[in-house]
Amino acid sequence: MRAIVTIRFKEGVLDPEAVAIGRALRGLGFEEVRAVARRKVIELELDGEDREGACRRVQAMCEQLLANPVIESYAIEIPD
Amino acid sequence: MRAIVTIRFKEGVLDPEAVAIGRALRGLGFEEVRAVARRKVIELELDGEDREGACRRVQAMCEQLLANPVIESYAIEIPD
Repeated sequence: MRAIVTIRFKEGVLDPEAVAIGRALRGLGFEEVRAVARRKVIELELDGEDREGACRRVQAMCEQLLANPVIESYAIEIPD
Repeated sequence: MRAIVTIRFKEGVLDPEAVAIGRALRGLGFEEVRAVARRKVIELELDGEDREGACRRVQAMCEQLLANPVIESYAIEIPD
């Protein structure tokens, strides 16, 4: 089974790397760049067939390791 | 206008961070994790309304800064 986790910064949290990317792009002449935001996507290949159980387990993975719940939010997708 | 760039490692390129995430998850008791892959997603907010021009410009941004074309591939999406 496959699970796709998307992690992004919570609203209002400054992402210094995104700010730096925006500045670098404008410095290279891409002056049309107004704002930059980043997300991380982690694809997990999982043993087992229980979609609901997998969703709960992946949520625990996010809380324990994949995301920093203080500054990041995450979304879990389990495609068919 | 918004452009979404998805960057991933090319087929066959080892991603040591993904390997480490898989190992850490299994070490935490998530033994069902078989494989882990990562993608980076960069959202750009751009001035202007020319979708085709924007696509060409974002391609240049990928080649010059956002992706490492030796080991990474990228996809550009310009949603309506």
